[in-house]
Amino acid sequence: MNPVLDGIAPSLIRALNARKQPGDIDLGLGEPTLRPDPRPFEAATAWVREHGCPYTVNAGFADLRARIAAYHALPERASAENVCVTVGSEEAIYLALKAVLDPARDEVLIVEPCYLAYPKLCALEGLRHRTVAMDEDDGFRPDAARVLEALRPQTRMLILNSPANPTGRVWPRAELQALADGLAARPGPPVYVLSDEVYRELYFGEPPASIGALWPHSLVAGSLSKSNAMTGLRLGWLVAGTAEIAAAVKVHQLVNTAASTFSQVVAREVFADPRNLAEHRAHYADRLHLLNASLAENGLHASPVEGAFYCMVRLPDAWSADSLGAAEALLARAHVVATPGLAFGGSGEGWLRLSWVAEQDALREGIRRIARFFAEPRAA
Amino acid sequence: MNPVLDGIAPSLIRALNARKQPGDIDLGLGEPTLRPDPRPFEAATAWVREHGCPYTVNAGFADLRARIAAYHALPERASAENVCVTVGSEEAIYLALKAVLDPARDEVLIVEPCYLAYPKLCALEGLRHRTVAMDEDDGFRPDAARVLEALRPQTRMLILNSPANPTGRVWPRAELQALADGLAARPGPPVYVLSDEVYRELYFGEPPASIGALWPHSLVAGSLSKSNAMTGLRLGWLVAGTAEIAAAVKVHQLVNTAASTFSQVVAREVFADPRNLAEHRAHYADRLHLLNASLAENGLHASPVEGAFYCMVRLPDAWSADSLGAAEALLARAHVVATPGLAFGGSGEGWLRLSWVAEQDALREGIRRIARFFAEPRAA
Repeated sequence: MNPVLDGIAPSLIRALNARKQPGDIDLGLGEPTLRPDPRPFEAATAWVREHGCPYTVNAGFADLRARIAAYHALPERASAENVCVTVGSEEAIYLALKAVLDPARDEVLIVEPCYLAYPKLCALEGLRHRTVAMDEDDGFRPDAARVLEALRPQTRMLILNSPANPTGRVWPRAELQALADGLAARPGPPVYVLSDEVYRELYFGEPPASIGALWPHSLVAGSLSKSNAMTGLRLGWLVAGTAEIAAAVKVHQLVNTAASTFSQVVAREVFADPRNLAEHRAHYADRLHLLNASLAENGLHASPVEGAFYCMVRLPDAWSADSLGAAEALLARAHVVATPGLAFGGSGEGWLRLSWVAEQDALREGIRRIARFFAEPRAA
Repeated sequence: MNPVLDGIAPSLIRALNARKQPGDIDLGLGEPTLRPDPRPFEAATAWVREHGCPYTVNAGFADLRARIAAYHALPERASAENVCVTVGSEEAIYLALKAVLDPARDEVLIVEPCYLAYPKLCALEGLRHRTVAMDEDDGFRPDAARVLEALRPQTRMLILNSPANPTGRVWPRAELQALADGLAARPGPPVYVLSDEVYRELYFGEPPASIGALWPHSLVAGSLSKSNAMTGLRLGWLVAGTAEIAAAVKVHQLVNTAASTFSQVVAREVFADPRNLAEHRAHYADRLHLLNASLAENGLHASPVEGAFYCMVRLPDAWSADSLGAAEALLARAHVVATPGLAFGGSGEGWLRLSWVAEQDALREGIRRIARFFAEPRAA
């Protein structure tokens, strides 16, 4: 067996979900509960009737790539050659790490708390990596100064995620500009920024800025999974410089040839009017309103939610060093699934991540039960 | 950039295809020209209307995995836990290489001529690899003794492909048994056999045996791409021991999470009656009849086709050391796309691969033109 796999811990989220019983309230799930619009699927089925289901070129349909490039509109990276269509944003992240870094030399810096696939993918690819934690006492606010301070001469890629899983925070434009300025001022070869923008369309204030617009050495990962409730479509993309995309496509064609043609036709339908990518935002904004009211009513302390569909809730002192134990006890005693903060790195310890995509009654009741659980003594 | 990518040559097939002009006869294509049955797509669209398009578990729908396991019916590896659903057989091959080998120590042996993704994937993963060529003067006949002789103490995986791309040969059961016996007699840890069975359903004599049935340390890759003309579905699978599948799923979930849910529902429809996987065989058998007649009529020397939809045609002496030049000249002078044998390793030099999935008239005319081209002096 490949020894790198020993170093990759099994998913805490998956282990907890496996214990879920029918009737439990699920605030753990990382995917929309909304249904996708079936019309793009119907159109894609009609397309298959006419054209069959052949391979596309490895990088994906050129017109789809052109639309994705135009949608992100990154300076100097806005044409089809700047896009590889991928099997979800997960593959886009994998390709970015695999294609542009030299494992013998390069180090990756990851902004924490974070989606744990980032460090695990680094481990899988034999890439040295470190994390830099945002300040929990400041609600995990994105902080360019902290990130810049954590860079080392061998750091060759920085991974950030805005809007962020698990914190729900969004990097403000000014903070991204400070980051880009700091990177530009650094001696030595430029640091790539891998910007995971899978929650790009789910924001509840100003539209999020992209570091891609401010720093030329950015690679941007996106997907239809969250915006359009199409996680199972496995349709994502990487946007980057032409040399970086050429390298990514070389990997992509060897590891899976191309993304599903059917999924690409669905995506083409969605991108025919890019406003389709925003169609679920109002729904989430409503649900966030309910979340915030319920948190306040029940006196829970949470990170401010600016985007995505998560929030971090602070555990009471008795559980502050054992989020895994807290999540297990919450499930056993109160029948609520939530994700231990530890699943997002050491800086998430002392917190629980709630996913607030559940039905309204379930969300309200789940938060009431969490508050009651927090009020109980630990050894109850 | 990742320096391993420098060592991976761009695809000769792709470069040649890029020069194809409208009206040229294409005997280069590695995918069916048949249309897939649209009904499974319609059923999957109805499923999405009812269920949305959520993630499946990483390894794929349990019932689909169970059906795939039953279809292959490998001893001791016939349950859902023995299957990972993948993004085509391409990903299955990648996962097998990535999951079960230790790049620091293990070596891969590849039977040649071969699909060049095998050595390229080894290079991508930093795995040492060698090839063992079947005898061109014996029509590239699968030869267990040659393979066994080429094993070294550090060889930890053998890759074979039956029915084979590019030769059209099928490993006879007796030869596979000799291989399994030889492997069993070897001292040291067992050698994995990765058996690429993507052309499993396209045979024109006895149904092909699988080394998977004869050697417990086999990993079998399969797909709906070729059997059902669904290359764009990107739906394949790996069948192996539970420990090997668990390791493969660990990689799979990090590199792309899961195969497309829509594609999995389509596959579930196809596997509802496994005879659906054989539905195109009669068509190919007819076309093979025409191919053999045309080859004979035109006096071309080819490897005997027992499966898949390729054959290797021997180049005349003038081109025997330059299959790439021959393919280029054939395209420029005779307007026929064929694939240089060199694209399948050094042992393919001196040959052209024909893909005989073209329409009947195109196939007949293509072979006539090749014969005429072979009869011309090289510097014509």
